[in-house]
Parts: sequence; C-alpha cells; structure tokens
Amino acid sequence: MPRRKQITVVGSGGRVPPQVSEIAERVGELVVERGAVLICGGKGGMMEAACRGAKRKGGLTIGILPNGIEEANPYVDIAIVTEMGDARNIINVKSADAVIAVHGEAGTMSEIALALKAGKKVVAIKTSGGISAKLASQVIGDKQILSAASADEAVDLALRK
Amino acid sequence: MPRRKQITVVGSGGRVPPQVSEIAERVGELVVERGAVLICGGKGGMMEAACRGAKRKGGLTIGILPNGIEEANPYVDIAIVTEMGDARNIINVKSADAVIAVHGEAGTMSEIALALKAGKKVVAIKTSGGISAKLASQVIGDKQILSAASADEAVDLALRK
Amino acid sequence: MPRRKQITVVGSGGRVPPQVSEIAERVGELVVERGAVLICGGKGGMMEAACRGAKRKGGLTIGILPNGIEEANPYVDIAIVTEMGDARNIINVKSADAVIAVHGEAGTMSEIALALKAGKKVVAIKTSGGISAKLASQVIGDKQILSAASADEAVDLALRK
Amino acid sequence: MPRRKQITVVGSGGRVPPQVSEIAERVGELVVERGAVLICGGKGGMMEAACRGAKRKGGLTIGILPNGIEEANPYVDIAIVTEMGDARNIINVKSADAVIAVHGEAGTMSEIALALKAGKKVVAIKTSGGISAKLASQVIGDKQILSAASADEAVDLALRK
Repeated sequence: MPRRKQITVVGSGGRVPPQVSEIAERVGELVVERGAVLICGGKGGMMEAACRGAKRKGGLTIGILPNGIEEANPYVDIAIVTEMGDARNIINVKSADAVIAVHGEAGTMSEIALALKAGKKVVAIKTSGGISAKLASQVIGDKQILSAASADEAVDLALRK
Repeated sequence: MPRRKQITVVGSGGRVPPQVSEIAERVGELVVERGAVLICGGKGGMMEAACRGAKRKGGLTIGILPNGIEEANPYVDIAIVTEMGDARNIINVKSADAVIAVHGEAGTMSEIALALKAGKKVVAIKTSGGISAKLASQVIGDKQILSAASADEAVDLALRK
Repeated sequence: MPRRKQITVVGSGGRVPPQVSEIAERVGELVVERGAVLICGGKGGMMEAACRGAKRKGGLTIGILPNGIEEANPYVDIAIVTEMGDARNIINVKSADAVIAVHGEAGTMSEIALALKAGKKVVAIKTSGGISAKLASQVIGDKQILSAASADEAVDLALRK
Repeated sequence: MPRRKQITVVGSGGRVPPQVSEIAERVGELVVERGAVLICGGKGGMMEAACRGAKRKGGLTIGILPNGIEEANPYVDIAIVTEMGDARNIINVKSADAVIAVHGEAGTMSEIALALKAGKKVVAIKTSGGISAKLASQVIGDKQILSAASADEAVDLALRK
C-alpha cells in the first residue's frame, strides 16, 4: 500500500482572530477527509487549530516540534522532538507532499521560502491575512506561490496532481 | 487521550545475519502489541526489520530519514524527511520515550550516546551483536545503558515505568 | 578583547550580472575595512563575490556550507561543514550580528525571514535586484527589513548601533 | 593558498581535574604551533582549555555553539551559533580534518561515533580519562579510534598524512 499523502500546514503560533483560526481548522478537517496525514510544527495557534480539525475527523497528526515535548498542542498524535529551534522548519516542509500556509509572520515566511527552494508545491490562503495574504500568487525566482481563496480551495490545490 | 508511547529502534542500516534481523523484527512486533508507536531512521537493515514487525501487527511506523524519501523502507507509514544526514540522529532519540539498540556500528553508537546525553532510557540487546553487545550494561559518565537478553526483555525494560 | 562583529552576507549562489556581483564584492571589502568578520554560505555567486572582496582587504571569511567541503569557494578561510542542506541557513543568520542581503531568490528569502524571526538586524540592498529588491523596506509581522541603496549604506546600517 | 587544517577538539564541558584540563590546553597550543585552526564546541571545560591554549599561541579559535552566544568561552574568536543543541555535534566533526578527544562523557562519545561514521580520523587521548580513555584503540565496525598517550602524540597523529 502506498504511503498516504502528507500535507504540512504552516502558520502563526500566536493568537489570531477566530475567523483565521477557523480557516486552519477547516484545512485540518479537509486534509483528513481527503485521506492525507496532517503535519505541522506541533505548537499553538494555526498549528493547534489545524490539528484540532484533523482530530475531529479522526485523522492522524504529526507535530515537528522546534523544542521540547511540552510545547506540543493537545491534538498532536505523534511528537517529533527536534530541539533544533527554527532549523526544524526545513523538516516541516521537506516532509510534505504540499504545503498550505495560513496567516503567519516571519517563521511562516521562512517555511514558504524553504518549501519553494525544495521544489514543493506551496498554497497560501489569501483570505487568512498575514504573510500568507502578502505572498499568495507571488513569483520568487522561477517559482510561484499558489493562491487559494478558502480552505477548500487550498486543500484541493494541494492534493491536485 | 494521552499520546501513545514512542519507542525508537536504532541499529545497522546494512545487511545483518537473519537471526539479528529477527530480533529487530520481534522488537517491532512487541512495541505495537504493547500499544506504542515505532520510530526509527526509516532506512533498511534493522530499521526495516523493526518496521516490518510493527506493520505485521498493524502498528504505526515513523521513519526519520537522514536524506530523501527514496531511502524509506516499504514499511514506513510516516516519512519525516530531514535531509540533514546524521544530524537527524538526535531527532530519533529526542522523540523517544525510550530507545532500543539492536546490533549496529558507529551510527548506532552515536544514537546511544546522544540518547544518554538527552536523559533517555537506553536498552541495548546484548545478544544482537555489534555495538549493542559491546555497550550493553556499560556506564557512561553517570548513566547506564540497560542490557537485555532478548527482544521481549528489551521492550519490557523500555516500557517499564 | 571582545569578539569582532560577525556580518553574514546572504544571496544567490548562481550566476548573476557583473554589476550585482560587484555589490557583493564591495560589501565583503567594507565588512573587513570596518573590522568585522565575513560569514556566508560558502558557495559561489554572491557568497564567492563577498568572500573575494573580504580577502582582497585581508579579512577573515567563514563559509557555513550546506553540504561538503568541495562546495567551498576559493576565498573561504574557515569551512564549517554542516551536510544539513538548507537547515544550515539558520546557522548563517544566528551567527550574525547583522545580515546583509544581496539579490537572491527563495533561499535568500528564507534567510531573511529566519533572521527577522531571530531578532537580527536585516539590511537588503534594494539596488541588487532579486528578492532583496522585493523585500527591502517591507514589514513582516512587527519587524522591518532595512533598505540600503548601496553596499556602503548596507554595511553602515549593519554596523551602526 | 590552501585552507589551513582544521582540528576539532571534543571533550567534557563540565569541570575536570587540572591535569586533564592541562592536556586540552596543550592540545590547543600544539594545534596552533602546527599551523592549524582550532574548532570546538565553544563552551567551558575541555573546550575552554583548548581555546585558551590556542590563544596563548596566537591562534584562531572557532566555537560551534549548541545554543546561544552567551555560552561561548572567552577564548572563542569566531562564534558559530547553531541553537540546535546536540545536533551541532555533527558539525563539529564534519568540519574537521581530524578530531582529538580529551576525557568526556556521553556527548563526547557521540562526537567520536559521528566522526567515525563520517570517515574522519579520530584520536583519543588515553591518559585523559573519561570516555576517551575507554574508547582509545577500540574498533567500531570497520573503523579504529587511534590512541595517544599525550597531547603531543595526539596532535602528531591528527596532522600526520
């Protein structure tokens, strides 16, 4: 049996408006409904929202933690403990079949950039604000960040051949 | 629901005698029978044998790969792609509730040492040969590597409070 | 004696127009004239140009290589071999008192983002093109990327208190 | 001009008896007298002693720090800040033309093992105690850890063709 697709959600670890958090949660649900595994940085904010959505649908969640296990949000099934700080960002994106960005700031920006460099498909949800809104549709070097208007469109783009 | 225990198996990636491979496979089976998740380096040899055992019992296997996805053995469910070479050894052991060593050489020795440094319980299967046989029962600084005579004893020691 | 300042130059590893390469070379010269050590990714392109400039002025150059020693440009004095791929980007920026970006694409973008996240001063040379031109003056979250019109202004901003 | 040889000294970060510290200091002196650059983990203990020796002879010292700059001992010239914890051990050894081990515990053991795996020459000073005494002359897989009876012999072995 082939491995399931692995979709990484990147985004702010801090507090965000509820409507933004709902987008991340919906992404988590859809990733699972489409048969994929959810990977994220394992912490709070967008990462926790995405994991919560995934668990609501009975999915599997992988948290690649920058530091220790105590950072893991309660919806992380498998905790990958790196204690490498932001050096773990590269693992988040290299482990992905595609990356979906929701809101976010500098850390998310680094993951989008690293994912492009690694040749990964990157979908930014324009309507989520933050760096995702800013970078959606942009071309960096010879690579484009795809733009999605919703969680549904983002997951669809991420899993499309 | 609390996260399941995560047990990391470390050992040779290369070819080993069948009786050694059987020990690793049995460890994989037992880890799953005891309700834990199997983590390993995701490659061949001991890692593949442990994953094969875990999958036979319907368990979940995580492979933390030093390089790309093409290295993953066919029994890896979740591929964590680091492309960090042996820097990923630290992740293998930091993600573990306990580490079990089967056979192995210098790479395995580094994982045993890093696990001790990280304060993890380390069980070396004395009967598996290689560096595991050499280091079983040894004290490094103020830490002891536990010695097990079989896969059963190793998993038992690893999961004991 | 206090350690010398460490300035990291980030930018394209590939071929760039000569006028862009000259900017990087001039940055390397100025970093040394101002008494600082030059750090970079150790490879070709902007990194090599910056190292060449630094060596012309008799400075010290540190190359933090993503892979092996064979990638080092001939102007690297000290080769830090990570074999961690782009996970080494975080080391480039964390080792810096300030980061100067010249031209660049996705890799450089990741370093700018990681540097902001790490609270480092980041100066992008607007006139060098690439991602540096695109990001100069931009605000990411609560952090601003400083904009410089020349190598001189960039080094001045980087070393100003 | 070819790059200077880079010798990495690994060993305990904690307190050690003065006669052990003197061995590390002597290694630092000799590395510089022989025209090489000293690399170490940048912290206290053996690392500080080796750096102190190197600086007494006017050499260049590189500290590859596991965490932040505040950990650097006062004899580090160039601080490579990884904030990767023990994942930086691999960088210490991959950046070396040869590795010299003085005393040490589990962390040093991991560096010896990683160096062997990376195909580096490793010299353990038998008379320094700790894990270095334990591992000197041992064969791991198909690789041998060289044994030295003194700082002089260690540096000689390290720099011999």
